[in-house]
Amino acid sequence: MPNATSQQNARFSDTIRRLLRRDAGHSIRKILSRTHPVDVAAVLDHFLPPEKVKLLACAGDDARQAEVLAAMDTDRVVELLTELPIPGIVQLLRQMSDDDRTDIIGALDEELAAKVLAAMPEEESHEVTELMQYAENTAGGIMTSDFLSVSETTTTAEAIRILQESPDVELGFYLYVVSEHGSLVGVVSLRQLVTQKPDRPVSNYMNPQVVSVRVDDDQEEVARVVSRYDFLAVPVVDQTNTLVGVVTVDDVIDVIREEATEDMLRMAGAGDELEEKPSVLGSVRSRAPWLAAAWAGGVLATFIISHFSEVLVTHVLLAAFIPVINGMAGNVGTQCLTVVVRGLATRRVHFKDFWRVAGREIATGAILGTLYGLALGLLGLWRIDGQDATISFVASLQLAAVVGGSAIAAMVIAATFGSTVPLIFARLRIDPAVATGPFVTTAVDVLASLIYFSVASLVVS
Amino acid sequence: MPNATSQQNARFSDTIRRLLRRDAGHSIRKILSRTHPVDVAAVLDHFLPPEKVKLLACAGDDARQAEVLAAMDTDRVVELLTELPIPGIVQLLRQMSDDDRTDIIGALDEELAAKVLAAMPEEESHEVTELMQYAENTAGGIMTSDFLSVSETTTTAEAIRILQESPDVELGFYLYVVSEHGSLVGVVSLRQLVTQKPDRPVSNYMNPQVVSVRVDDDQEEVARVVSRYDFLAVPVVDQTNTLVGVVTVDDVIDVIREEATEDMLRMAGAGDELEEKPSVLGSVRSRAPWLAAAWAGGVLATFIISHFSEVLVTHVLLAAFIPVINGMAGNVGTQCLTVVVRGLATRRVHFKDFWRVAGREIATGAILGTLYGLALGLLGLWRIDGQDATISFVASLQLAAVVGGSAIAAMVIAATFGSTVPLIFARLRIDPAVATGPFVTTAVDVLASLIYFSVASLVVS
Repeated sequence: MPNATSQQNARFSDTIRRLLRRDAGHSIRKILSRTHPVDVAAVLDHFLPPEKVKLLACAGDDARQAEVLAAMDTDRVVELLTELPIPGIVQLLRQMSDDDRTDIIGALDEELAAKVLAAMPEEESHEVTELMQYAENTAGGIMTSDFLSVSETTTTAEAIRILQESPDVELGFYLYVVSEHGSLVGVVSLRQLVTQKPDRPVSNYMNPQVVSVRVDDDQEEVARVVSRYDFLAVPVVDQTNTLVGVVTVDDVIDVIREEATEDMLRMAGAGDELEEKPSVLGSVRSRAPWLAAAWAGGVLATFIISHFSEVLVTHVLLAAFIPVINGMAGNVGTQCLTVVVRGLATRRVHFKDFWRVAGREIATGAILGTLYGLALGLLGLWRIDGQDATISFVASLQLAAVVGGSAIAAMVIAATFGSTVPLIFARLRIDPAVATGPFVTTAVDVLASLIYFSVASLVVS
Repeated sequence: MPNATSQQNARFSDTIRRLLRRDAGHSIRKILSRTHPVDVAAVLDHFLPPEKVKLLACAGDDARQAEVLAAMDTDRVVELLTELPIPGIVQLLRQMSDDDRTDIIGALDEELAAKVLAAMPEEESHEVTELMQYAENTAGGIMTSDFLSVSETTTTAEAIRILQESPDVELGFYLYVVSEHGSLVGVVSLRQLVTQKPDRPVSNYMNPQVVSVRVDDDQEEVARVVSRYDFLAVPVVDQTNTLVGVVTVDDVIDVIREEATEDMLRMAGAGDELEEKPSVLGSVRSRAPWLAAAWAGGVLATFIISHFSEVLVTHVLLAAFIPVINGMAGNVGTQCLTVVVRGLATRRVHFKDFWRVAGREIATGAILGTLYGLALGLLGLWRIDGQDATISFVASLQLAAVVGGSAIAAMVIAATFGSTVPLIFARLRIDPAVATGPFVTTAVDVLASLIYFSVASLVVS
């Protein structure tokens, strides 16, 4: 079965909508029971909360309904659950993996969350409150505590039996081996279990060099480990090397997507607009501070230019070149910036490569700056000499040199800022994506104006 | 074992370097054999090709050496292999998975690739040439043809035996079930095999609704399917639904990273700088076209402004506000642009949401534009009235209104462009990331200048 496109989803939703209008519950049930829970979730997205509740009930048993919820955005799940009675909520949540369950309870309003927790069996509500103590963006925040572990003396046959008896555990393809004190000492893969003799203890063939992450490690670090070693899951340990959870690769994929989005938005000065449907005012609030920085920089450029107003009075055409010089410098700066920031994020660039990276970016900027700066100077010569008959060719040449030279200088400076600032920020442990976007473009605007008019007033006077 | 940081890697490399200088092969062998192949690859990165060859030989048997190569960048592997004799290259390549092997042979220079293929057993060289026919960024380009499939009548016990007899197959956690003609008809998980009765045929409990991708599907589509359904691998079929390969989740993670990087670089107008260490001239080549577009736009702005030079002659202070108006509009445009482009890439935004998305982005831009535009107008009033005693307060007020009003208009237009252009491009099946970065900022620069001076000449004259 090829996977569903968004158009197919829309058409499918229309069919369901018609059936819903005709109250044809039986047909809906028949169709949805044959649809992948992930696709059911996509269909639900097209309906209002009360309809969602009806459709969810047609999706199959509690386990299947829980799978549908797990594939939906947390905000939507909360909307839907709010329509259900407490016992109904608890019944669905109990079928979910503990990490998904914890995320959802954490997103419910406080009163409802307390009621739901109170109605859950104590063991499970305890698990949730345990997981809730970890910060959202850490290994603890994305791990599940539903994992399988065995002791060193467990035999292959016993391990397989443990697997057979716990069908609920998420993705059981690794079995972690722990010491009698709960310390992580090794790992065996499901693959190994199938190929080893039944009476061999797992400690005989386990891999004792198991790579783990700490419960308070940043989720970005967890993603890096999983993708570096091509793991399907990574065990999470606490300060005493006790195994406390497992992060699976599907959650890591979400982290990688999320972190890339976050970096892009930060570089663009659009803050942390990660919710699916942020409000206009929310967007205004997250974008306003970056614009304030740009505004302040722009105002500084205003002061600089008006300081040189005498040059402008005599050579008004100079003003016409402000946008192109600032714009080109801004573009060159953004190019260097993006290459370096993304290089740092994907670990292709490190602070120790400072001179190599800065050197090649500045060289690139210098070549591009010289090319386009010369072109701009020539254009300037043609424009100034052609339009203003009151000045001599030599004076035109001087002005054109000011335009071209300033453009080159501005682009080189932009490349220097764009490449070195993120490296320095990374070294100071400031997220280069947060800090560099508005910082560099604004600084480049100010410096470009300063260079342009300083040079102009020197040459012209 | 906590995972290695880059500092630990550097220290580790220093140790190895000292041992290499003392020619202490035995110690190196002892250390490297206990190090994860991925970490050995990271260490090798610190050495020159001839040293790499020596160290690789100390990393263990051929299978282990192949794992080290698989964890290295393709460019580095090519550098290293070029130092080895043909039989040595073949020996290592044969230990690798066929997708990695194909990528490496594809990156060798043509003559060497031909020699290597000729020295390989025919079956394997045939497999490589088969895989090489698929475009790099498609499902075919990233799939492996080393997968396990069984027929519908295979029993659990037989399936387990097949697994046990093929330890080389990459990540065997799914077993695909094919009809007698090779069509994909179902999937069973390793987990199911372990928990089912030995004599049951797999067709009794296989999942017949197996989601697959087509061999010519874009790799981005493959990544979307795997992450949407939380798969560990997805089967690849040809036009006749015949199973031809499998894409595993580790390759999908690389695709997701790569695509995010590509989008960021394209939005910044830094083209396709995806190689690890691009040359300065390579960067110049990939960045120059985008700057040419910006240059042309900037030159257009030059013409516009010089067209209005009469206004500037009498009100030279107007020039001082060019950078802040253009800069603010550029920033607002980039914010909207990034939110929409990333939304499209992560499928949170679709063309069918055109009015909702454009509406909220433009509203956000209008609010931000009004706030900062008013602030700029007030600042303008203070500056103009304070500095230029020759003009009346009313005239100052007029000029300030020109500055503030133009700033507001420019930001609203920037928001409109930034949000609608990527949506329209997506609809036209042009990559929004490629086209919108330079396009939008340049268009905004030109329009902002046009608005500013048109309004100014209207109000002032």
